[in-house]
Order: sequence, then C-alpha cells, then structure tokens
Amino acid sequence: MAVYTDVTAEDLSAHLARYDIGSLLSFKGIAEGVENSNFLLHTTKASYILTLYEKRVDPGDLPFFIGLMEHLAGRGLTCPQPVKMKDGNALGELAGRPAAIVTFLEGVWIRRPQVSHCAAVGRALAELHLTGQGFPIHRANALSVQGWRPLYERARDRADTVAPGLAATIAGELGHCEQSWPRELPAGVIHADLFNDNVFFLNDRLSGLIDFYFACNDILAYDLAICLNAWCFSPDDEFDFAKGTAMLAAYQQLRPLSEAERQALPLLARGSALRFLLTRLVDWLNVPPGAVVTPKNPLEYLSKLRFHQRVGSATEYGLS
Amino acid sequence: MAVYTDVTAEDLSAHLARYDIGSLLSFKGIAEGVENSNFLLHTTKASYILTLYEKRVDPGDLPFFIGLMEHLAGRGLTCPQPVKMKDGNALGELAGRPAAIVTFLEGVWIRRPQVSHCAAVGRALAELHLTGQGFPIHRANALSVQGWRPLYERARDRADTVAPGLAATIAGELGHCEQSWPRELPAGVIHADLFNDNVFFLNDRLSGLIDFYFACNDILAYDLAICLNAWCFSPDDEFDFAKGTAMLAAYQQLRPLSEAERQALPLLARGSALRFLLTRLVDWLNVPPGAVVTPKNPLEYLSKLRFHQRVGSATEYGLS
Repeated sequence: MAVYTDVTAEDLSAHLARYDIGSLLSFKGIAEGVENSNFLLHTTKASYILTLYEKRVDPGDLPFFIGLMEHLAGRGLTCPQPVKMKDGNALGELAGRPAAIVTFLEGVWIRRPQVSHCAAVGRALAELHLTGQGFPIHRANALSVQGWRPLYERARDRADTVAPGLAATIAGELGHCEQSWPRELPAGVIHADLFNDNVFFLNDRLSGLIDFYFACNDILAYDLAICLNAWCFSPDDEFDFAKGTAMLAAYQQLRPLSEAERQALPLLARGSALRFLLTRLVDWLNVPPGAVVTPKNPLEYLSKLRFHQRVGSATEYGLS
Repeated sequence: MAVYTDVTAEDLSAHLARYDIGSLLSFKGIAEGVENSNFLLHTTKASYILTLYEKRVDPGDLPFFIGLMEHLAGRGLTCPQPVKMKDGNALGELAGRPAAIVTFLEGVWIRRPQVSHCAAVGRALAELHLTGQGFPIHRANALSVQGWRPLYERARDRADTVAPGLAATIAGELGHCEQSWPRELPAGVIHADLFNDNVFFLNDRLSGLIDFYFACNDILAYDLAICLNAWCFSPDDEFDFAKGTAMLAAYQQLRPLSEAERQALPLLARGSALRFLLTRLVDWLNVPPGAVVTPKNPLEYLSKLRFHQRVGSATEYGLS
C-alpha cells in the first residue's frame, strides 16, 4: 500500500483547475504501487489516477515514463493516458512533489491466471513491443545484467540465512549470466515488470496494462522471459507448459522470435529469475522493523531459476 | 491508512453475485478508516464501498452500525446506505471477515473549515439526532465518562513524558467530570466522532456524513460538544467564536437546546476534550516501532481542555 504524501481537497481542487477534466467530486488514497502516492479521483467528467512521485523516483526519468504512456496510449495500446494541463504539460507539481494525472482504467487483476490469460498477456506484450518502436526517449535498464552484482553484494553475507547455499548458487548463476548474456538481440522499450497485478482484465478479456515505472530499453525477449516467470508457473512453482505454449504462440502471432532470440530464451529466463530472486532477497533481508508490507518470498524465484537451469531449449517452454 | 485483508478479484466477483449491483469493473484498497479494510468498487451500476470488519470491531456491534446507516439513509440523511444482498441481508462474509457494501458518497473533506462549514455541520448533527430517534437498537458508549479512568490508568505513568504535569491535570479533570457528569440530559443516537474527515462537502455544500463506527447512545449535547472541539478552533487551538456561534445557531434551528443542556455545555465540552486527550495520549504512548501511521498529537486537546476549564457559560461558545 502506498500513500506517502497527504493532499488536501483544497490543494487538489486548485490543481485540477489547471486541467480540463471537470471539478473534483472525491478522491481516495489507494493501496497501489510501492514507489509513489496514488489517488483515485472522481471528477464531474470521469475517473482518474493522480500520482505523486516520491523520492525514490528520479525526476529525470519522468519524461520517459509519461512520454511512453502518451506514446503507447496515443497508438491504441490500452494503458493509462497522461492528461495534459491547459498549458500542454502532463507533468505538474502538487504538495511539493512532481505529479501527473492519468486516465483510470477499469479492470481487475487475476490472482490465479488461466491459460487464456497467459495468451492475452503474450499478445499484449508483443503489442507493447511493436507500439514502443519509434518512442524517442531512451532509458537504460538499471536492473539488467550489469545491475545484478551490486545486488548480490548487498545480500551475499546473509543470503544463506534464507536458504543454505543460496549465496553460492547466486554467485555461480551470476557469473554464468555475466559471461553469456546476449548483446545482439532485438531491443526496444520493455515493460520489465508485467506481473499479474499490472495487467487488468474485464470479463476475462485483457483491458489494460499499468505501472510503467520499471519500463526501459532492453532486449525484447527478456521482457517475454519475465512474463514466462511471472505468469506460467503453478502456485507450487512448477512450470505450466500449457500456459507457456499459449503465451509464446500469442506473442509470436504478432512478433515472431528470431532464431537468435529462440536460442537465447532459456538464458534470458534464467537471468530474469535471477533478477527477481536478487531484488526480493535484498528486500527480504532489509525489512524495516514493524513494516506493514510483507516482502515477497525470494525462494519462489530460486525454484524458478533451478527449473530454467535444467532447460535445454526453448521448446521446453512450449515454443513452437 | 487501512487495508488489512487481501481480497482477490475472483472472490469479490463471486461475492457480488449475491447482490443486484452489477458486475465488478474495478476495486482499489483505500486509505480510509483505521479499524477496517475498505475498498472502493466500480461496478457496471455505480460506485460502492466494501468494508471488511477486522478484529478490533466487535461483530456484536455490526447490526447496530449497519442498521443505523439503513435507518438514517432510509429517512433522508445523506450517509452511506448499506446495500442488501438478494437474500435481504446487508451483512455478508468475504475473505473470512464480516463484510458490508454501502453506497459511495461523492464529496471531499475540508482541511481548514470556514464558518459556513461549521454551520453546515451543526445543522447536519441536529438532523442526525432527530433522524436517529426511533432507531431500536441500543449501543452503550464505551468512551463516555465511565470509560475514561481506565484510559487514564494506561497512560498515567508516562503521561508526564508528553507534557510536564499532564498526569495531574488529567487526574483533576477526570475527578471533576466523574463527579459532575450530567445524568438527565436528552439522549439518543450520537455520531461521537464527527471530525472533519467524516463530513463530505461538494462545492462547499455538505454532501454526506460517514464513518458511524463510534456511533452509540449517549447525551445528544455531548455530540455537539465533540463537534465544537473538532470544528470550532483555529489551527493554533484558539476557540473561534464565529464558528461556534454558527454551529450552535444552525443546530438550534432544528433542535433547540433545553436550559439544562445549555447549562451543561461547558462541562460536556471539557469531557469531550478529555476523552480525545486520553485516547490520543494512549495511542501516542503506544506507537508500535516502525509504524507508518503518525498518531495525532494529544496536546491539541490539552489546550482545548484548558480553554473549556475557563469557560463560565455556554454563551462564550456563541450560544444565543
């Protein structure tokens, strides 16, 4: 849950006067996102999300995030559309924070996705990758392969308190990824965090993608590998071949993978499992005392990593 | 902020099938209320609030709270209206918790109320007191005079760490209230917590009252005294005579105070200041380490209490 900054109705009403989105009917701080403060607004025109960007977000990244949502939404992808103020800017300031208002997307996220949901996500991811082409701003992925060793170093000394031998497992995998990571694969804008709670469905039809605050430029097939990890395992962390097959087929209908991407998929899947293992491990080891938020269990990604280490070819994910 | 219980879209959709309020479009955990988990729902029909009652709420009180909102809303008071399931019950169960869905009230709460807001609150409070007549369920006020000594005993030993001499001040005031507390004043259903954040306005017109989870049966004029404390002081805790005058006049337009109520008002104001001083003090002294929620400063109510101790007659509040 996340509401870090207090906003008054008086200040928000004054802020809304800069837009052409009607007047304020109500607003509620919502438990969504972990980096920023988010509010659901009802105005006389529609519903919107107000985001106040908190300290953990680099203001220099905001033109990328907001520009990307504008780029994608303007080209038909259903994602939050930043609303421009009367002066043409989409990025304002409220309560001393950079602030943006985006359109509200109806939809709910699915706790236990079925095969059909995985297919929908595969298709939406390919749409995102194609639609992102031509977006002119570049943002490096701080959580790609070169960002993993610093995470490992923060977790190394206490990693084995979470699982015996974990530090050695990570060290070995990290060395493998650093040595073998592909450099020539098709790259572009990736979502980089397309987990269940960032994909909305209405009546089992995908209704939108949200939370572009990890989006960046990186290998497109790496984004697909993240989704395989996030969507295509059973609740007991067994790979679900039917889900993988459906996701990969739907993705390839719009954006067929090259031979090099097919070859690289198991390595990309290992890398993406390692990335979430590392970030979750660091969070797990650094829970502030009395914290309300329970960190996600890193060991889910250890068992996913072990699965990928045994994979010989992408056909084992269902790639046809 | 408060979202203690996780609800899945799958479970919520199934739960909504028991109602006739359309199908689920979206739901967000909202940062409102401190005792329960609250979600703002959009359905194909309208917006609603789903409340899951957490452990701190006595399930035996739920028929009072829900019945009261039904009683009031059914008689024209703008407050959340509990929605009945197809089987006629308004109280269901979801995620292992007692659960209710109420209509969503548009409106925002005012951080810095003006005289006109205080008048609107006075009028709404009188409406509440009149409309509450005939509500058949009774709920004692656990935070009335007989509940204050146990709070004092929890805070006594460390009270002076908050302000020098605080324990003695409270002990003296407590003795005075216990000895003099009126027993024969008109009683009925009171809101008991009608602070700024529980009163919604739209374009400076009062649009509804919320949060009836402290409501109970007690002295009606005590509720008015709570509102004088909550609404009619300046940000630096000076009594605002114009606000008091406006609130009392608006209240009396609908429900004139008896001579006994007028006589008792300064004592009721002292008691209500003591009540919030005590509960805030206990919360202040018992903040869990790492807590996200900052407790409210008890000393605001110490200075209000000192003001009331100097008041000789209710005319000093603006009572005409």
